[in-house]
Amino acid sequence: MDTMTNLKGETGRDARRRIRAGAARLPTSGMAPGYVQGNLAILPKALAADFARFCMLNPKPCPLLGQSEPGDWRLPTLGEDLDIRTDIPLYRIWKNGEMVEEVTDLKGVWRDDLVSFVLGCSFSFEEALIENGLELRHQSCNSNVPMFRTNIECAPAGPFHGPMVVSMRPFKPADAIRAVQVTTRFPSVHGAPVHLGKPEMIGIKDIGKPDYGDAVPVRDDEYPVFWACGVTPQSVVATVKPEFCITHAPGYMLITDLLNSRLAVL
Amino acid sequence: MDTMTNLKGETGRDARRRIRAGAARLPTSGMAPGYVQGNLAILPKALAADFARFCMLNPKPCPLLGQSEPGDWRLPTLGEDLDIRTDIPLYRIWKNGEMVEEVTDLKGVWRDDLVSFVLGCSFSFEEALIENGLELRHQSCNSNVPMFRTNIECAPAGPFHGPMVVSMRPFKPADAIRAVQVTTRFPSVHGAPVHLGKPEMIGIKDIGKPDYGDAVPVRDDEYPVFWACGVTPQSVVATVKPEFCITHAPGYMLITDLLNSRLAVL
Repeated sequence: MDTMTNLKGETGRDARRRIRAGAARLPTSGMAPGYVQGNLAILPKALAADFARFCMLNPKPCPLLGQSEPGDWRLPTLGEDLDIRTDIPLYRIWKNGEMVEEVTDLKGVWRDDLVSFVLGCSFSFEEALIENGLELRHQSCNSNVPMFRTNIECAPAGPFHGPMVVSMRPFKPADAIRAVQVTTRFPSVHGAPVHLGKPEMIGIKDIGKPDYGDAVPVRDDEYPVFWACGVTPQSVVATVKPEFCITHAPGYMLITDLLNSRLAVL
Repeated sequence: MDTMTNLKGETGRDARRRIRAGAARLPTSGMAPGYVQGNLAILPKALAADFARFCMLNPKPCPLLGQSEPGDWRLPTLGEDLDIRTDIPLYRIWKNGEMVEEVTDLKGVWRDDLVSFVLGCSFSFEEALIENGLELRHQSCNSNVPMFRTNIECAPAGPFHGPMVVSMRPFKPADAIRAVQVTTRFPSVHGAPVHLGKPEMIGIKDIGKPDYGDAVPVRDDEYPVFWACGVTPQSVVATVKPEFCITHAPGYMLITDLLNSRLAVL
């Protein structure tokens, strides 16, 4: 399985091996269909307890799928052979809140005090929405999902605080109701929407000007539907300006051995 | 248990016995808390198969909880001792589509060809909404829930056809999302909303002028949320003008031995 031509039967482990071998330095969307992909944040141990508590207090934007032991590059609950230093195609290195470098593995920068956090991402529930016959507008537009900073404050923990970031997908009313039902089943990957229509109520001034990602059209017979977004922890960490931290590069996710369908609580 | 002063521990069977004894000729709201109450339609056997199929084809407005054998006044799956001729405080007798009489029992009008249909009602999911801390506006206003004829056509069966009637409850966006979750658990009592906001999309011209029940205020930060309503089968039956049929009088429901909480699919 060394090509992009047949990913249908690719497992999470297959995909990580391709990535680890340098054979897939690409965004991970579409790789290992059906397997959970996650956001990555790696922080020094001095910040780890507060960040873990921040995730616990804010499960909708920060659904924690895995947390490593300090200095350990393994995350066996997410993948038997998983090595967080090599299994993501592209990483970002941050120093004092500034992105200083993009790298394809972490072997040169690894430290014994680093703790890895893997957070659920919307790919999992988007797969379920598509299986339900719902259109994802940003996919139809071949663009990134639009994301907005809101006036919803996350519950603070130590130095970590800040507003929730949401992603937006437009749906007709009956489809919005179905989307609530479908995503409610997936609390570990952002779960149900946090808001629906009326963007001004959560501090969004212009639905046509997202803070991240690309604008998509919302038709007159549709509502913008808002889900808590994994960009929230990234934006919160950036505010804290840790002396050192690591994230995945946007779109280059960690592919796990978990099945999306098994994340459904029912 | 012969007074209205302590209904807290009253069972469905207790309530039916009070009603059967003529000791409770009152609307049933608040009786036997926690027990399922249902809408009643009694039709001649000649129409029963088509009406049963109409319910099957339109489960959201017509969730069938029980159906009797022709001529049999019992419905043992809904209550061991249940006698449909005596266990509802007030009935309406209809001839050729006209309401001709209200009676307190059916012993004088019973026929060997009558089939009873008991349909779920919104009392059950309203109890669950209240338990979730959500405000029911029509209760705050001490009025009846507003109901509207829509442009959503029910699937026809034999002579039965017509538009869906919906009930409306206003909620803020986050509460509307919660209300979708809560009522989704109760498919046998109308289930999830069929529509949300944008009343014109389902043919409602003026949200302040319901076709049945009373108008309630919808605030600027709220949506009208619409559920399929048990008035639908009544309005459809009225259109057919059967030579003879019986319904409960509005608000005077059949109290069963089923628990609301056991209607939840999860």
